[in-house]
Amino acid sequence: MTEFSRFTPLVQSLPATVPFVGPETQERQVGKPFRARIGANENGFGPAPSVKDAIRAGAEDIWKYCDPENHDLRAALGAHLGVPMDRIAIGEGIDGLLGLIVRQVVLPGTPVVTSLGAYPTFNYHVAGFGGRLVTVPYRDDKEDLEGLLEAVRRENAPLVYLANPDNPMGTWHSAQSVAAFADALPEDTLLVLDEAYCETAPPDALPAIDRLADMPNVLRLRTFSKGYGLAGLRCGYAIGSLGTITSFKKVCNHFGVNRMAQIAALAAVNDQDYLRSVCERIETARRRLYRIGRDNGFEPLGSATNFVAIDCGRDGAFTSQLLNALMERGVFVRKPGVPPLDRCIRISVGPDSDLDIFEEELRNVMVDLS
Amino acid sequence: MTEFSRFTPLVQSLPATVPFVGPETQERQVGKPFRARIGANENGFGPAPSVKDAIRAGAEDIWKYCDPENHDLRAALGAHLGVPMDRIAIGEGIDGLLGLIVRQVVLPGTPVVTSLGAYPTFNYHVAGFGGRLVTVPYRDDKEDLEGLLEAVRRENAPLVYLANPDNPMGTWHSAQSVAAFADALPEDTLLVLDEAYCETAPPDALPAIDRLADMPNVLRLRTFSKGYGLAGLRCGYAIGSLGTITSFKKVCNHFGVNRMAQIAALAAVNDQDYLRSVCERIETARRRLYRIGRDNGFEPLGSATNFVAIDCGRDGAFTSQLLNALMERGVFVRKPGVPPLDRCIRISVGPDSDLDIFEEELRNVMVDLS
Repeated sequence: MTEFSRFTPLVQSLPATVPFVGPETQERQVGKPFRARIGANENGFGPAPSVKDAIRAGAEDIWKYCDPENHDLRAALGAHLGVPMDRIAIGEGIDGLLGLIVRQVVLPGTPVVTSLGAYPTFNYHVAGFGGRLVTVPYRDDKEDLEGLLEAVRRENAPLVYLANPDNPMGTWHSAQSVAAFADALPEDTLLVLDEAYCETAPPDALPAIDRLADMPNVLRLRTFSKGYGLAGLRCGYAIGSLGTITSFKKVCNHFGVNRMAQIAALAAVNDQDYLRSVCERIETARRRLYRIGRDNGFEPLGSATNFVAIDCGRDGAFTSQLLNALMERGVFVRKPGVPPLDRCIRISVGPDSDLDIFEEELRNVMVDLS
Repeated sequence: MTEFSRFTPLVQSLPATVPFVGPETQERQVGKPFRARIGANENGFGPAPSVKDAIRAGAEDIWKYCDPENHDLRAALGAHLGVPMDRIAIGEGIDGLLGLIVRQVVLPGTPVVTSLGAYPTFNYHVAGFGGRLVTVPYRDDKEDLEGLLEAVRRENAPLVYLANPDNPMGTWHSAQSVAAFADALPEDTLLVLDEAYCETAPPDALPAIDRLADMPNVLRLRTFSKGYGLAGLRCGYAIGSLGTITSFKKVCNHFGVNRMAQIAALAAVNDQDYLRSVCERIETARRRLYRIGRDNGFEPLGSATNFVAIDCGRDGAFTSQLLNALMERGVFVRKPGVPPLDRCIRISVGPDSDLDIFEEELRNVMVDLS
């Protein structure tokens, strides 16, 4: 397999990889679709009917390029969040924004701090720009704020990643702890605060927007993929200080957020009633997942997200066995990648029809494994 | 405006910019929508009815992430083009692919060859990774293949950009000339062959796919934004050797091509009848634009694209005046950015209703200016 001979040494050293194997890939491998798709922390309740209407109507003008300023969406988000719109940048999902942030900070060898077992796509971007990952183990299934801070100081790291609520564990820190963490960081360390799951979190897990908004070294990332149910459209946003937000314009793909994503996200922001109703359904589904876990003798972790990590009480080999058995029975779920987190399986919420299948097949699998 | 203090020196040195000001921005400035949107080389005839149907149907499953392998779209494109699907990479429009290519080749100071006045977004990406642009003037309103080759050799450049057909002039080289150009390049110079306008080009302007497919130093870029009428969905693709195509997996945003783009592009590939009919309408509209140009005493350039560059026979100051007058009358058109190309105005094809407005307002403007 001959490739072009003058790619940069860094690129030549990288593996061709994918942070997550998609469920479609697995479906192609087994030759049939999953019966329950509850593994990728998607929102099976879907977006608002008003959003679907907007998408359908948007087909008519899809021959037009998008607005590279994302004006209307930023205006709506700014009004909703109570910040000026020039403090918001829109990107191709949080994944896209993470890539742009890493690119702006990381040179070959730059130390970057994250938690051991946290979001793989962030790590992928850091590797992609030659950064050196410094990982801090979770403590009590939560990201270890003290440990992260210590690592930042020790390494003089310009970049640190924190997800609150956390993925893959679903746990969270209080708004106060997160704000104190941001305050304690050196001014020349950029905090990427990934709040993908903010809509499903308890209010006291989220610092007020203006609490962090003027710190040039904090970027809060949010998405339309989770609570808003628009994972397929890849639309995320960053909130930060004017200068740090403006810097995205130096490196972004200006026409990268597509027109349909802008249209759908705008409609989603404007339908907060639906978001509230969906968050209630997510809460109900979480409780059901807790119950299913306990019914099988497991210990579910309290979750502030649209998924539940269920502690299966044994090692990663056991959860792999359990996961594979579920997959064979048509249930798509995932698990954390590293010990000790990988003693858990991670199940996304979804409609009752999906959870019915999960409940039944988990029972069957447990019988088989016992 | 305080930004984070430890962005890389390169990023700190970059301007916050946009390669193109979007028509929406201009509409917001003047406070009213354009009457004719024929400036961004969009396809005002729009996508196929079958594609719009697919988009509308796709709203239902938009809560799902996309397939990061872009499997079905690559399979359909491979079958259509007669290449194995692993020789195709999908990206967020050609713009997104250009960014990934530049990132893989360009380090600070790397010389990169392009034509003076060619695609600004390519130049934006080169600047964004610290490359040094080496520009070659057009010759007779065509990209100068000999000049480009000479610059590549002189600079030992690892990357060269060529659009065929060309934007902003609409001119083209023969398949034979392009293939000879590729053959003549050093093996360690990567040719980015931008074929955004391939669907509207005469057949003899496009080398057969297998003519260049096994050259590790050639990537051909195509898009669903032009002939297929899907600019709003940001979906482009690269065709190349297995190794060079596989390298995209090292740096891409795997879930970056959104689900709706995949769905719509797949439907578009599967409706070649519509593409043929739209290309006929584009050809008819080109002829009308030629005629309008001549009626006003100008000299339209023969075009292989979905736009026509009309030589107004004077300097850039005159065309700017003309352009501004058209914009004030609600007609969105653009012009090339540098002399001598900027003696032209560039008008995208569109439905007769748009060209009616253009024809009438150009006549009015010419009366005013005379």
